[in-house]
Amino acid sequence: MSELRKDPIVGRWVIIAPDRAKRPEDYTQEFRVAPGNFCPFCEGNEFATANEILAYRQPGSERNGKGWRVRVIPNKFPALQVEGSLNKRGDGIYDVMNGVGAHEVIIECPQHHVDMSQQTVETIREVLWVYRDRLVDLKRDQRLVHGMIFKNKGAPAGASLEHSHSQLIVTPVVPITVAEEMKGSHDFYHFRGRCIYCDMVHQELNAGARIVVDTPLFVAFCPFASRFPFETWIVPKHHSSHYESIQRPAIEDLGSVLKGVLGRLEAALDNPAYNFVLHTAPFDTVDLKHYHWHIEIFPRLTRVAGFEWGSGFYINSVPPEEAGKFLREVELDAPTHARFAV
Amino acid sequence: MSELRKDPIVGRWVIIAPDRAKRPEDYTQEFRVAPGNFCPFCEGNEFATANEILAYRQPGSERNGKGWRVRVIPNKFPALQVEGSLNKRGDGIYDVMNGVGAHEVIIECPQHHVDMSQQTVETIREVLWVYRDRLVDLKRDQRLVHGMIFKNKGAPAGASLEHSHSQLIVTPVVPITVAEEMKGSHDFYHFRGRCIYCDMVHQELNAGARIVVDTPLFVAFCPFASRFPFETWIVPKHHSSHYESIQRPAIEDLGSVLKGVLGRLEAALDNPAYNFVLHTAPFDTVDLKHYHWHIEIFPRLTRVAGFEWGSGFYINSVPPEEAGKFLREVELDAPTHARFAV
Repeated sequence: MSELRKDPIVGRWVIIAPDRAKRPEDYTQEFRVAPGNFCPFCEGNEFATANEILAYRQPGSERNGKGWRVRVIPNKFPALQVEGSLNKRGDGIYDVMNGVGAHEVIIECPQHHVDMSQQTVETIREVLWVYRDRLVDLKRDQRLVHGMIFKNKGAPAGASLEHSHSQLIVTPVVPITVAEEMKGSHDFYHFRGRCIYCDMVHQELNAGARIVVDTPLFVAFCPFASRFPFETWIVPKHHSSHYESIQRPAIEDLGSVLKGVLGRLEAALDNPAYNFVLHTAPFDTVDLKHYHWHIEIFPRLTRVAGFEWGSGFYINSVPPEEAGKFLREVELDAPTHARFAV
Repeated sequence: MSELRKDPIVGRWVIIAPDRAKRPEDYTQEFRVAPGNFCPFCEGNEFATANEILAYRQPGSERNGKGWRVRVIPNKFPALQVEGSLNKRGDGIYDVMNGVGAHEVIIECPQHHVDMSQQTVETIREVLWVYRDRLVDLKRDQRLVHGMIFKNKGAPAGASLEHSHSQLIVTPVVPITVAEEMKGSHDFYHFRGRCIYCDMVHQELNAGARIVVDTPLFVAFCPFASRFPFETWIVPKHHSSHYESIQRPAIEDLGSVLKGVLGRLEAALDNPAYNFVLHTAPFDTVDLKHYHWHIEIFPRLTRVAGFEWGSGFYINSVPPEEAGKFLREVELDAPTHARFAV
C-alpha cells in the first residue's frame, strides 16, 4: 500500500506509491502517447478495465457493456486505495499515514478521437454532473477530506492514454495548493469581511482586459499573476465554496464556458497539451464564506517548469492582458483563424 | 521592463517578462538542445556574450578574453533588470512592482562537453566560491532581498544551452518556496526551540536509510517526503542560514559532496536531466536560528509534473529509502555499474 508523507517544514503531503512504478512511462524520459493502439477506454473494450463505478447509460444497456455516454472506472495504477485504515503515525519529526483514498478515471465519451473541446456541450455537461456525483458519493467516507478533479491532455501534460478522460484523486488530507488558498482567503476574509475570489471577479469584470469569456453565471479570465502563458481560470460569479453543491443552471452554463475556453486555447495555440485542476473546499467544511471553487487551466507550452517548481518563482513571457485579448478575440467558427505568434 | 506581480490569494510572486518571448524555445512544444552548434559559453567565444561581471582568471589574461576558469555574465534574456526603481504600487486587490533585480549566468568551465559531475573538484569549488561572491556583491543593493542560485541540466530540465552553467536570479521579494520554509521553520523554532533542518539532519543520520553521502560537514539524503524519484538534498551539518557566509572548509567539503551526488545520480539514472536549487535566507536577515540553507536536487525522470504543480500533490513511485540505498551503493569508479531498473 502507498503512504502519505508530510514534509515537516512546509507541510506538503506527498504520495509515495511504489506500485505506480509499473506504469511504463515512469522511467522513460521521452514518453509518447501511442496513437492507433488498442484503447481500453473505447466503447466495446469495457472488458479491458476494472468494473465501472458509475456510468451514464442508455436505458437497457448493461453494466460494463456498450451503451454508455460517460463512464467512471478505478485507475489501473492507483496512487491511493479505498481499502484499509489510515493508521496515522509519527516517525520522529515526520508524519505518515497509509495511502487510503480513491483514484478514479472519468472516461468522457465513448469515441477515441474526440477531445473535450470537440465534445458536444451536452456531453461536457454530463461529465460535469459525473464530477459532482463522484464527490457527493465519496465525501460520505469519513476517512476522506478532499477530492481533486483534474485532466491531463497530451503527453507533455502527463496523459498516458489519448482517449479523452479526467481523473479524480480523493485524499485523507487537504492538498497544499488548496490549503494555501484556504488560508489566504481566510486571512483576507478576516481582514476585509469579503471573499477574495468574489473581489477578483468584480475587479476583473470592471477591468475587462483579462476576460476570456463572460456569461451570466461564470467568468473566465487570465489571472493577473498568471504563472504560465495563457493560464486561464473559470470562476463562478455567485459565491460557492463546494463544487458538489452545484445546481442545474450552473452546470448548463459551465458546460458552455468550459467548451468555449478549451476551444479558444486549442484554436489560439494549435492544439496544445494542457492540464486543468478543479479546486474545491474540503469535504469536512460546510458553505465557507471565504473560499470559492474554481477551475485552473494551464496550457503546457514550455518546458521551463524545472526551476519554477523548485523555487516557486514563475517566469511568464506572455502578459495575461495579451493572452486574454487573444483568447477573447479568437473566432471559433471561422474556417481559419489566427494563431498566437511569438 | 518586466513586472513582478503577486497572486493575492496565496502570495506567490510571478515575473511577467514579455522580453523573454524572444527565446526561441518558448513556443515550441519539443525544444531540444542542439549539440555541435556555435556555443557562446566556450572559451574563445567571449565576444558573443555581454561583458563579464566576474571571472576567475589566469594571471595576465584579459577581461572578456580567454584564460578564465569560471565566468559570470548577464543572462541574454533576463527575467529582471538591474536598472530602475521598484515603483511598488497597487491595482485594486493586486500588488505589482517593476522587474528590478539581477539575472546572471555562471559558466562553470571553459570546455563545452564537461558536465558538472565530470568537472574536477577544484573547478566545482571555484563555482561554489563564485556563487558566494555574487551573493555578497548583490546583497549590498538595498532594493534586493533574495538570491536564488539554480542549475538546469538537459532540455527536459529547461536548459537552453548544453555548455555547463548555473544561473542566479536576485529579486526584490522572497520566492514563495523560501518564504514557506522560513515560516514553517520559524513555527517549529517557536514551538521546539530548535532548527527543524538540524533535527532532520540528526534524524536522518540516526536512521541511515535515506543517506546518500555523509562527510564531516555535510549530509546528502533523499528526503522523507521526496516529491520526485531520487530527489536529493545536501544540507550542512552545522547550522547556517546564509550560504554567502560559507567558509573555506565547508566549500572544500561541499565541492566533493556535490560532485559525488551528481555523479551518483548520473551513474544510477543514465545521465538524467536535473535541476538543483540553492535555498538560502533573505538578504535582509542576519544569522537566523530557525532557517538553514541547503541544496535541493531533482532529477527529471518523468513528465507527470503537470497535475503536480497544479495541485501541489506529488506522486512519487520510488520510496526515498530505495533511492537512498541505490545512490549510496553506486560504485562510481567501477568500469560498469548498475543502473536503477523498474
